[in-house]
Amino acid sequence: MAKQDRAIRTRQAILMAAAETFEKHGYRAATITEILRIAGVTKGALYFHFPSKGELALGVLEAQEPPPPAPDQPLKLQELVDMGMMFSHRLHTSLLTRAGVRLSMDQQAQGLDRTGPFLRWQQTTHDLLTHAKQNGELLPHVNPMETADLYVAAFTGIQAVSQTLTNYRDLEQRYIALQRHILPSIATPSILTALDLTPQRTTDLARLAPAY
Amino acid sequence: MAKQDRAIRTRQAILMAAAETFEKHGYRAATITEILRIAGVTKGALYFHFPSKGELALGVLEAQEPPPPAPDQPLKLQELVDMGMMFSHRLHTSLLTRAGVRLSMDQQAQGLDRTGPFLRWQQTTHDLLTHAKQNGELLPHVNPMETADLYVAAFTGIQAVSQTLTNYRDLEQRYIALQRHILPSIATPSILTALDLTPQRTTDLARLAPAY
Repeated sequence: MAKQDRAIRTRQAILMAAAETFEKHGYRAATITEILRIAGVTKGALYFHFPSKGELALGVLEAQEPPPPAPDQPLKLQELVDMGMMFSHRLHTSLLTRAGVRLSMDQQAQGLDRTGPFLRWQQTTHDLLTHAKQNGELLPHVNPMETADLYVAAFTGIQAVSQTLTNYRDLEQRYIALQRHILPSIATPSILTALDLTPQRTTDLARLAPAY
Repeated sequence: MAKQDRAIRTRQAILMAAAETFEKHGYRAATITEILRIAGVTKGALYFHFPSKGELALGVLEAQEPPPPAPDQPLKLQELVDMGMMFSHRLHTSLLTRAGVRLSMDQQAQGLDRTGPFLRWQQTTHDLLTHAKQNGELLPHVNPMETADLYVAAFTGIQAVSQTLTNYRDLEQRYIALQRHILPSIATPSILTALDLTPQRTTDLARLAPAY
């Protein structure tokens, strides 16, 4: 294995161990000692990649996003729907994503800047909505920035409540309900029937974009 | 002061001290010692009202809800809008409400049943939507339970993101945007212009219902 490959694998092992530890204890109670034990690396290796617990947390926060783009679609609103479906799927399958979301919601993480993920998600969503507006997919009054803010906040809530009440079992269902409640307020009516909001879409996307 | 009044005041002092402590440290790191110090009561008094830290947390969770009802309105959708405006206002003014919301989102609160507030909010919202449907305010396809679930989850997200990004400064603005994105998907069109979604409404409500 080349030296660079090894460094990437070590970094990944540390991030996974950090994700597990933050997920279990929260930011404040998580210890470098436990992360070292789980990752099975030396203190020197850890500090080479992440000079502090804060840097480790930022590493986990960044690993969840920006999300790999959803497959290109003629309708940008479908891409927006797909992005959320894929992220919901990752919350089931990726410890790193779960830990990142949890850290971004961790109000006890004093000194940790948790604004990054929200602002980057808003930007990605804003770009898709701006593109959708240029395509004529949105009603004239829609302000892409305001709608992007709303999507990010509403999705944040849906995942938090789904996690609390059902450990994410009803996440897809809640996400589809969210889109069914927002899209009619922002999309040109003729587009609505062309959008795929079925649970089957999630399965199809997992096939189209296996990285998820 | 009558004995009963004194008991109510002691209970309230303990709850406020618990709210302050949970708000500051989160559930897991909060200690009974600190709560006793802030409340200025004896250990016996505290355990008389709340036999454990878990009971204290449930007390704080319950103190934030069920929300006192919004003033009765001819349109039940206006009452729904008002309820959220009043709750947003309370997040600014009431430590107990802020602490309750924070506890309900505290993923490190192991062993604490955090589902209560979500389920009770869903029920209150569901009842208002059912009433709105009976009044003919909702489009025929709307399922009050699904829409109630969505409102609670989306509001949860809005307050969390607003807290993280602006310490609640943009909460009203985000709440109004939420309603502007959901109401057109659920309300009979002719009702939309009769609903007051302006920031001024918050001020008016604070006058109508001074308990907030």
